[in-house]
Amino acid sequence: MLRSISYFNPLRLLLSVAVATCFLITPGVGALAQSADPLPSWADGKVKQAIQRFVVDVTTEDGANYVPRAKRIAVFDNDGTLWSERPWVQGLFIEHLLRKAAASNPALADEQPYKAAIENDREFFEKGGMRDYQVAIRRTMTELSREDFDAEVRSFFATSRHPTFNVPYQQTVYQPALELLAYLRANGFKTYICSGGGVDFMRAMSSDFYGIETDQVIGTSYKKELREVDGKWVLESTAELNTFNNRDQKAVNIDLHIGQRPLLVMGNAGGKGDIGMLGYSQGRDGPSLQLIIDHNDEAREFAYAEDDNASLNAAKENGWHIISMKDDWSAIYPPRD
Amino acid sequence: MLRSISYFNPLRLLLSVAVATCFLITPGVGALAQSADPLPSWADGKVKQAIQRFVVDVTTEDGANYVPRAKRIAVFDNDGTLWSERPWVQGLFIEHLLRKAAASNPALADEQPYKAAIENDREFFEKGGMRDYQVAIRRTMTELSREDFDAEVRSFFATSRHPTFNVPYQQTVYQPALELLAYLRANGFKTYICSGGGVDFMRAMSSDFYGIETDQVIGTSYKKELREVDGKWVLESTAELNTFNNRDQKAVNIDLHIGQRPLLVMGNAGGKGDIGMLGYSQGRDGPSLQLIIDHNDEAREFAYAEDDNASLNAAKENGWHIISMKDDWSAIYPPRD
Repeated sequence: MLRSISYFNPLRLLLSVAVATCFLITPGVGALAQSADPLPSWADGKVKQAIQRFVVDVTTEDGANYVPRAKRIAVFDNDGTLWSERPWVQGLFIEHLLRKAAASNPALADEQPYKAAIENDREFFEKGGMRDYQVAIRRTMTELSREDFDAEVRSFFATSRHPTFNVPYQQTVYQPALELLAYLRANGFKTYICSGGGVDFMRAMSSDFYGIETDQVIGTSYKKELREVDGKWVLESTAELNTFNNRDQKAVNIDLHIGQRPLLVMGNAGGKGDIGMLGYSQGRDGPSLQLIIDHNDEAREFAYAEDDNASLNAAKENGWHIISMKDDWSAIYPPRD
Repeated sequence: MLRSISYFNPLRLLLSVAVATCFLITPGVGALAQSADPLPSWADGKVKQAIQRFVVDVTTEDGANYVPRAKRIAVFDNDGTLWSERPWVQGLFIEHLLRKAAASNPALADEQPYKAAIENDREFFEKGGMRDYQVAIRRTMTELSREDFDAEVRSFFATSRHPTFNVPYQQTVYQPALELLAYLRANGFKTYICSGGGVDFMRAMSSDFYGIETDQVIGTSYKKELREVDGKWVLESTAELNTFNNRDQKAVNIDLHIGQRPLLVMGNAGGKGDIGMLGYSQGRDGPSLQLIIDHNDEAREFAYAEDDNASLNAAKENGWHIISMKDDWSAIYPPRD
């Protein structure tokens, strides 16, 4: 029953990619993978059809829109595109770090933002918005080396659960996004994250959660310095922002890291963050595909929109495909074991 | 005669990589590739042995030093490491751009640095060093979009020849470096460039010259802005430096782009530019290999050293492998057709 393959199972996923890879160099093994629906959690409809038509189009060697493998670049936002962004998980991680810092230095417990983190004062952080998070980020991250920070993130994910759904965070990734990532890779695409999230935070989870390695993750970063510590050269964060990877900067950083306009970009409405990279992709010479998620599924996830609807308006003006979570995704999350 | 395979032939190279890839998923096809010497232009000696021992070591699945494929990151400097750096090719390209600009706007012909470019006044640029090049870069590059700049570089390489050797620049790449790149890739390494050269300049030649795609090139860059031009979103350079990718910044930018300490780094002595990334690689937990080229071959290339010998001294102190061009490379350039 090939139709029942769950693309979320990492071993099966690896196998399907390996089989697809071998096709390229071992003719005659054929029909197997092509008969299965690679996007079982996508409802039949215009968006799913557009994706599949596009992938066939750019991979058909004699076709007018054929794109060589080196140019099959697919870029995904993270928060709200690959996993749920309510509440903001990186924010919860920062609160976790603040609590840890206060535990080892009790004098901090009465100071903000430590106090708010200890008291789980969500309002404090939500009222302050990014500003308080920035302050918190600077206070907690500049003292950690690259490797120490990575270990902290991994430990957070190993021990924490999503506050609304009460599941490990890996269960809050979108199953349709996982299927799309696997489908694109099996068709020779390289898959990247380009997100406002902290690059080191995302890199500590992107391989386990999405199969995306560290070098294919682009995010917000602080400047670092190379220092000798106990005879070993380490990189330490400074408090100076290197890049806030949002809006137009997403296009700028895609160029800096990848050096090509993406063939496919998927983002989401909610914070206007992805308009820049969707438009930049569309400016590509030759074919390109833009996808943007409308968070309209209060029953299964969350429903939210922008004040001025800027992202969805841009989508309509420019012919980007709007993914209705409610209608286009038959499942939101991976099946629970 | 497998020993006579030239790894420079792109088709043969592709075939050998394809064969190596298929081994991974098609057991029992075995012995073929392993019997050929993957590094025929490297003289038998300590350095060649160290490279081969290291690669076997980190790819032997039951071994103590096994490194999974996702962590097999190899980083190469460009100028003086992958191709000859005398004279500085990017500098010649900038002079070419200056001449073009003056040709389309004759009022510039009497101004510096245009005048020096027109008169081929090498002394002007060499005396000014990086400073004059920086001025020239700013004057010429900020008016070009990403795509226009790319086209300019490609046209330069299609029509220009190396001033000393009188060959197309592609003939000034180092054959032993090409063999090492192919050998590493066949063993599951991802190969990157991390160089002081301009990132957009290198990206326009790295695929043709080295088989390294744009997303695996890290270099010096200027800040860019997303602008709408004739209804299309394009990235344009500003005159503000984003990063000068040299010395410690090479380690910083490896972290920014790759997010891991490299398993292998190869650089060269001459400008002290690679000490930072060699040391950063060596700080990796587990095995790592550092290689640094000593340009000591006046007969076949150039002989030059640093005033204070900082790079080679650091190599001796830290146990990095020094590649003597004279003794360790039996050929320097690809065979001429």
